[in-house]
Amino acid sequence: MARFRKKIAIDNKLASGFDPVTQADKAAEAAIRKYLTSNFPDHGIIGEEEDDINPDAEFCWIIDPIDGTRAFISGLPGWGTLIGLFHNGIPVAGVMHQPFTGEKYFTTGKEAVLEHAGKTEILRTSPQTQLSGAIMMSTAPELFTGRDAAEFNALTSKVRLVRYGFDCYAYAMVAAGHIEIVMENGLKAFDIAALIPIIERAGGVVTDWQGNSAASGGQVLACANPALHRLALAAIENA
Amino acid sequence: MARFRKKIAIDNKLASGFDPVTQADKAAEAAIRKYLTSNFPDHGIIGEEEDDINPDAEFCWIIDPIDGTRAFISGLPGWGTLIGLFHNGIPVAGVMHQPFTGEKYFTTGKEAVLEHAGKTEILRTSPQTQLSGAIMMSTAPELFTGRDAAEFNALTSKVRLVRYGFDCYAYAMVAAGHIEIVMENGLKAFDIAALIPIIERAGGVVTDWQGNSAASGGQVLACANPALHRLALAAIENA
Repeated sequence: MARFRKKIAIDNKLASGFDPVTQADKAAEAAIRKYLTSNFPDHGIIGEEEDDINPDAEFCWIIDPIDGTRAFISGLPGWGTLIGLFHNGIPVAGVMHQPFTGEKYFTTGKEAVLEHAGKTEILRTSPQTQLSGAIMMSTAPELFTGRDAAEFNALTSKVRLVRYGFDCYAYAMVAAGHIEIVMENGLKAFDIAALIPIIERAGGVVTDWQGNSAASGGQVLACANPALHRLALAAIENA
Repeated sequence: MARFRKKIAIDNKLASGFDPVTQADKAAEAAIRKYLTSNFPDHGIIGEEEDDINPDAEFCWIIDPIDGTRAFISGLPGWGTLIGLFHNGIPVAGVMHQPFTGEKYFTTGKEAVLEHAGKTEILRTSPQTQLSGAIMMSTAPELFTGRDAAEFNALTSKVRLVRYGFDCYAYAMVAAGHIEIVMENGLKAFDIAALIPIIERAGGVVTDWQGNSAASGGQVLACANPALHRLALAAIENA
């Protein structure tokens, strides 16, 4: 937060485009890694900005220090810090923290909760089971080309409303019951691992576009409930 | 705010699509109108949800109670309450208030300011004068079709980064110096009138796509400074 909305250096990780990384990303990941290695020396760590440590450990942490660096450098509150925990490769706990708005969406057990403004509330996904009543989000339409675009458009054509521009914050809105669907592709494991258990514990379903585990990233489909998820998968399959 | 992230009725204003309006929009505008008519009985009022009152008065208020109702019903903090003041048809003062984040961007005189978390800071737009270094935003790419799309894409192809999904909040980011360009079309006067003086007092320029007044809405181009505005207008003209 000390670097949010301040003039900071922005490096580009991508030769053929613009994939920004800032000192805020690196410093946040270093701080999280320092805490984890001190407190859980036997655990593995996978993070966006540094090399993996013991990624096949029974317990492995998976970190995206700033998910949504493009939002971060634009002054927008759509980014978040993601920390997930794998147990034998299964995402079992996670947190999405948005320090500007002061929201912390997380799960460590049977329920997912939001801590905000001194209150804690249990999260429940939307009961909407029809695509025609669903609000859908995705980070940006340019991420979909070719066959991916056809499958994305097959779903957007069936929903009530499509919104763009929020990274991990969109998944938090699924968990909290405000929107029903997020569809994205090209994700890394650290973009989604922390969010899977939060949405699942709130009643939702997160898979890839074929209905398999999304824990390793790639094509991701998050839905508010199993009935809506089945309809969304069918729309994609019939694209 | 009492209705944000709560289960509320959503009406559709558009027969051929989805243009949501909620009790939150109507109640907020009614509260603002009540205050204005009590305190400034000679002034005019133009608002999104009710009929115009004396719109040709020397002083006329222009209200969008929730700019970004789609964001509001999606639980997202990209919406805001807009109140502008025209003097003889010229926008001279305005406020953009985002009550969830607690941010108030406004101007009543020579400078534009942000009140947030108990602090007041003077706003200054970005000094970036090159399109290749600029961050550009727009609410949604679907808003541009035909010739409009060609002109929009002519500008997006020249900038560093394009982001979608924030309504009035994007203009506040121009005023605050975090992004450099907003390009939109199909705006109503109440979508932009309050934002024009905020951006102008911070050092920016807001016009239509031909460089004329944007106070009545339509095609809007907001830029961080006059040099960048000239380059953006040229890119649109050469599309």
